[in-house]
Amino acid sequence: MGESYGAWRMGADELLMPHIDMANIACGGHASDPVTMDTTVALACAHQVQIGAHPGYPDKEGFGRRAFPLAGDELGAHLLFQIGALDALCRKHATRIRHVKPHGALYNQMMREDALLETIFKALQAFDPTLPLVVQAADSRRNDALRAQAADYGLTLLFEAFADRAYSADGHLASRGMPGAVHHSSAAILEQARRLMTHGEVQALSGETLHIEADTLCLHGDNPLSPEVAKALHANNS
Amino acid sequence: MGESYGAWRMGADELLMPHIDMANIACGGHASDPVTMDTTVALACAHQVQIGAHPGYPDKEGFGRRAFPLAGDELGAHLLFQIGALDALCRKHATRIRHVKPHGALYNQMMREDALLETIFKALQAFDPTLPLVVQAADSRRNDALRAQAADYGLTLLFEAFADRAYSADGHLASRGMPGAVHHSSAAILEQARRLMTHGEVQALSGETLHIEADTLCLHGDNPLSPEVAKALHANNS
Amino acid sequence: MGESYGAWRMGADELLMPHIDMANIACGGHASDPVTMDTTVALACAHQVQIGAHPGYPDKEGFGRRAFPLAGDELGAHLLFQIGALDALCRKHATRIRHVKPHGALYNQMMREDALLETIFKALQAFDPTLPLVVQAADSRRNDALRAQAADYGLTLLFEAFADRAYSADGHLASRGMPGAVHHSSAAILEQARRLMTHGEVQALSGETLHIEADTLCLHGDNPLSPEVAKALHANNS
Amino acid sequence: MGESYGAWRMGADELLMPHIDMANIACGGHASDPVTMDTTVALACAHQVQIGAHPGYPDKEGFGRRAFPLAGDELGAHLLFQIGALDALCRKHATRIRHVKPHGALYNQMMREDALLETIFKALQAFDPTLPLVVQAADSRRNDALRAQAADYGLTLLFEAFADRAYSADGHLASRGMPGAVHHSSAAILEQARRLMTHGEVQALSGETLHIEADTLCLHGDNPLSPEVAKALHANNS
Repeated sequence: MGESYGAWRMGADELLMPHIDMANIACGGHASDPVTMDTTVALACAHQVQIGAHPGYPDKEGFGRRAFPLAGDELGAHLLFQIGALDALCRKHATRIRHVKPHGALYNQMMREDALLETIFKALQAFDPTLPLVVQAADSRRNDALRAQAADYGLTLLFEAFADRAYSADGHLASRGMPGAVHHSSAAILEQARRLMTHGEVQALSGETLHIEADTLCLHGDNPLSPEVAKALHANNS
Repeated sequence: MGESYGAWRMGADELLMPHIDMANIACGGHASDPVTMDTTVALACAHQVQIGAHPGYPDKEGFGRRAFPLAGDELGAHLLFQIGALDALCRKHATRIRHVKPHGALYNQMMREDALLETIFKALQAFDPTLPLVVQAADSRRNDALRAQAADYGLTLLFEAFADRAYSADGHLASRGMPGAVHHSSAAILEQARRLMTHGEVQALSGETLHIEADTLCLHGDNPLSPEVAKALHANNS
Repeated sequence: MGESYGAWRMGADELLMPHIDMANIACGGHASDPVTMDTTVALACAHQVQIGAHPGYPDKEGFGRRAFPLAGDELGAHLLFQIGALDALCRKHATRIRHVKPHGALYNQMMREDALLETIFKALQAFDPTLPLVVQAADSRRNDALRAQAADYGLTLLFEAFADRAYSADGHLASRGMPGAVHHSSAAILEQARRLMTHGEVQALSGETLHIEADTLCLHGDNPLSPEVAKALHANNS
Repeated sequence: MGESYGAWRMGADELLMPHIDMANIACGGHASDPVTMDTTVALACAHQVQIGAHPGYPDKEGFGRRAFPLAGDELGAHLLFQIGALDALCRKHATRIRHVKPHGALYNQMMREDALLETIFKALQAFDPTLPLVVQAADSRRNDALRAQAADYGLTLLFEAFADRAYSADGHLASRGMPGAVHHSSAAILEQARRLMTHGEVQALSGETLHIEADTLCLHGDNPLSPEVAKALHANNS
């Protein structure tokens, strides 16, 4: 959330915020600006929503969705810069960030490349090792392996599953360019959400059933169905 | 310091850092980038130099030297963003920022416009009210008035005098465009520094003697004489 | 038009383009990027719409709507940069720009400050003096005075009236911050458009009748009513 | 040349310009800004130096030296944007660009990847097919192959050799990260220049002799030895 930029709007944050528990707020890298971050933190506070930093590649024109050529040390500096910037804006509203979730291409690469993941671990360890890192949930064996890797840095993880995106058979998200990669009906999103929550399962694009052991469920702020879906899920759970 | 940007160099930070006690490090607004900030913090730590945030207008092309059209709330958000970003990079090097000094046009306007000064007070109060704000030193009466204003926000001030810039008769710095505004001989800088430190006085461009009660002495990182001057002053004081 | 930026959308260009004769396309200053400019030029060509450059202050975060601190020579360089950039993208589609219309704060200041207007004249004279400059239409006496001023630079003018914005009694547009400054009903826009086209008149916010002698009528790409209004006007005129 | 940015200086353009015949001027992508471009064009005109556009990846923080993730169509739009922007600033000084030379990573990739080279061909064909493209000279067989490829787009080529950079055995420039990749003595640069001009040969880092058939010799604006070397070469040739 908070992915608007200057006069450009992205996402229906006002509609979505009342129905979620945790918000990942952009930090001026792939999207947002200090004023938008300030407004979005205020909105999250008004709805008692836990705030997480959502750092991304420093690439507004590409919205953080393309692999950006940064060396590990460079990326680490950018992550700390963005996380610290959002945390300072939280202080204005008497709160702090409570978790960190990388955005877009950075998130996808983190799930595939160990060197990148360790760069992120190091940045988080330097900033505040008590903040959990949000990563993509898989089955319990894969989750346990990641948990062990994070523990080496004194870090904890939060595992998230995706309700509005299709999965590939290998457990990664189907790439946005692929047909069917983003769900465009709330029925499909709700169905995937419920199956994940109830059975810890999701059906991959290719038909296989994947086991997913998740702590939290992700909806995308730029998906116009998210407010309606969040409201429905929230109502059922409370 | 830390005012380089990508491949572009500004200032001789490596030469200056060994001879100073406090460094004001740019925060990605008027200058710098996360990698430069990281490197500069490391350099300050290597020389046990106290780090201050040096936020400026978000205007790299103008190097923060032109009055940038931001409303108060907008400026406040930019200040928090920049201060928090630098502080996060400090954490990587097991340190934190210890003071804040606005840069360039922002600094000059802060000394002339109460509304702007209060915007800065509010940002600092939100971030961490124990961090002193660096302002321009004047005579003891004017200093006391500013001290009282800051106290209303629970803040303390550090008063600084300038060794390498000429003063106008009204106690402000002579504008950079004016002939003689920047001292280009180390003898002149050292003479002004010593008179400030010994007698609390400086001679204005127009000839008047100004009384200046200062806690700290500023040298500019982009003045090529600064390393030599700092070395001479440091040697004398230790 | 062409005021999107990367992943951020602004305006319904696809809906509006079929119903207009001339499009003012952003040039990467206040909005747009090379890819968006390319796409927008292609769209204009597909509908045989005449393309004009719509340069603005180099200030994406402020969308060119705030007075940006540039000296005359600096502004002149930015204008040429932006106009030339769009014209090059036109060449790809076998067309060229045919007029120039400054955007936002730059446009408003041009109508009030002679020095700024002459900076724009000089830029256009340097680029191509056969391209008309679009300025705000007033009564015939004021138009004639501007025409004479432009002729000193060998330039011609196109006078435009606004259908979707309210006028102040002094003939300037009511500032966007003022209540009623932007018309939000298509009936109101169509009514103002028709009175301008038929009688050369508009009613100011304060009630006075203003005489406006215009060559062209402006609709804003970011007003969601523009496609519907343009369609209605176009149908009536053909 | 013209690779300064705002207050940041790069290269000694004033010292180099009197001693060269052709200048490749940055276009606001990897470096420069409209004001710097304007000043640099004026300087070139004052010394009757032919101006070429030097477009690069839109990546100031990386100075165009890293492979930037742009699709072909996107890159084509960026190239036209930058070339047109510089050409418009040339018009202010009653001149025009006379050739195009891609910068940095873009240049290096163009010499290795046909798809990228053809994207550049298409952009130049759209802008003005009479402008030659500067490419890296090799032996006559390889040059002829490139010449034929360009002719398919109605384009001509200018082949350049490098005096201040070391060559790999495969004829490409040794990567900047490699020891010895940049010559740091004017004797070495002059020696390589003279051998290229007299014998059409250069010695690769690994010792092999390479045959290089070149029309023009490149010196880098950011190499501090360039003014002295250019002066020496110019004196010998006139």
